Amino acid sequence: MREQSKPTSSGNAASAESLRDRFVYGAVGLAIIFLALWAGLVLIVPSLIYILWVSVGELVDMFSRRGIRLSRSFLLVSGVLTLLASVLSLKMFYPEVPWREIALGLVILYAFGQALFSGADITNLAFNLMAYLYVPWMLGYFVLLRYSPDGSLGIVTLSLPILATFATDIGAFFVGRSLGRRKLAPTVSPNKTVEGSIGGIVAAFLVLVGYTWLIQGVFPFGHGELLIFSLLISLTAQLGDLTESMIKRYCGVKDSGEFLPGHGGILDRLDSLIFTIPLTYYLLVIFT
Amino acid sequence: MREQSKPTSSGNAASAESLRDRFVYGAVGLAIIFLALWAGLVLIVPSLIYILWVSVGELVDMFSRRGIRLSRSFLLVSGVLTLLASVLSLKMFYPEVPWREIALGLVILYAFGQALFSGADITNLAFNLMAYLYVPWMLGYFVLLRYSPDGSLGIVTLSLPILATFATDIGAFFVGRSLGRRKLAPTVSPNKTVEGSIGGIVAAFLVLVGYTWLIQGVFPFGHGELLIFSLLISLTAQLGDLTESMIKRYCGVKDSGEFLPGHGGILDRLDSLIFTIPLTYYLLVIFT
Repeated sequence: MREQSKPTSSGNAASAESLRDRFVYGAVGLAIIFLALWAGLVLIVPSLIYILWVSVGELVDMFSRRGIRLSRSFLLVSGVLTLLASVLSLKMFYPEVPWREIALGLVILYAFGQALFSGADITNLAFNLMAYLYVPWMLGYFVLLRYSPDGSLGIVTLSLPILATFATDIGAFFVGRSLGRRKLAPTVSPNKTVEGSIGGIVAAFLVLVGYTWLIQGVFPFGHGELLIFSLLISLTAQLGDLTESMIKRYCGVKDSGEFLPGHGGILDRLDSLIFTIPLTYYLLVIFT
Repeated sequence: MREQSKPTSSGNAASAESLRDRFVYGAVGLAIIFLALWAGLVLIVPSLIYILWVSVGELVDMFSRRGIRLSRSFLLVSGVLTLLASVLSLKMFYPEVPWREIALGLVILYAFGQALFSGADITNLAFNLMAYLYVPWMLGYFVLLRYSPDGSLGIVTLSLPILATFATDIGAFFVGRSLGRRKLAPTVSPNKTVEGSIGGIVAAFLVLVGYTWLIQGVFPFGHGELLIFSLLISLTAQLGDLTESMIKRYCGVKDSGEFLPGHGGILDRLDSLIFTIPLTYYLLVIFT
């Protein structure tokens, strides 16, 4: 989710230009993502491995500024293992085996074993496990949701949290900028407001109402269900955004990296999705 | 697994007495555990909640000596949620929903959310997540293995890693004491030896061969399969033992607590089982 910056009279032109840059790069990025997601496993898995690679690099770099040496090899190996496990869990392969739990179990043994034989640094061990749960563990759900309920309908399922997350982002930005008064989490993200947060929820709901109306044959949800779903997804998107802000503030950085001009690092783009996509997957398997 | 202590000439009598104490308390403890495990969910779930309660207390106390404030409420709530999810995952309830993954997802959101609204202490957050994965997440597998493949045969399945772990413990202790020369992990656990480690593997194999011969109708495994299983379980038991030693050394304590006279804390007793029981469960679901 983007940071809300108060427009200053001298910076209006520059900010409009950077807003246009953001929009162009964002639209191109979005198109590439949708192409990869639409194409299925052949493109999704390499794309996710690429995203894993870049985001692990960003995490390692950020935490190194606080003297915490995350293990790049541990996070990459664990992440690929988790992706593999997620693919194996798909209905068309072996859904009856809890592959992701097995991967997590091996990752835990790996982490403790690595700590044992490399100086017994428990602090690093704890940060490595946290980093694993934060990104590599979550990325696997992108595959699972893309194939829920199946390979053709999954693209629609996956688009629900993506649209709701983007709507939250944009709604919170504009409502917060025009109506924002009360600070939401001043120590972590000083520009966020309660009004913006509510604007994000409303925007997510409106976008999902419009979207599900367009595809009403596919998702026969009532407005009540959509409201609860929007509320949960939008709040989780905001939690993801604040979580990443908290991590960046801890590490003393403004952006997680330099991935896309005007958008900061890849984690700045994914911060909400790595929480909302798993949540959508959980809601789907519980209620359908 | 027990610490191997070199017998000294002056301490032989005391050490024989403490060995007898250890044995008596160990046997009584074992009998209670087997009773609870045999009785099924009605006794297992309260027993595991009690074990969770005591072991979380030990973790909180140990880490507090290094200035790390683990959140007792977070670990207890997460642990009970994970136990509940494990019970729901049983074949007789709703095995098609990945309840444990959902619990973990909620635990992660809970941990990040709690950190956000209580001072953004990322170090504590990382240690809390590590502590969660180390004990509460693992305890749930005790229920799952007890009911694999079903409620009546599960008691036999569960006894496999328990017997192999105890055999590893005892085999490593006696072989290490009589033949131990080469140090296994001198910085973490100075009394452990390579010879003891091998003795533990051999003991686990011999005990499993004997046990599966006794119950040959139930587990038709060949000696080759048993050897691989013993090797994996025994090595994992030793990893669990060393992991707990590493944590105790980090926190500057000799025992994890004072749960059973002569046996130290509850984590001193569970250190290997919290790794071998999940591993056995994974091996069973993959290969059967």
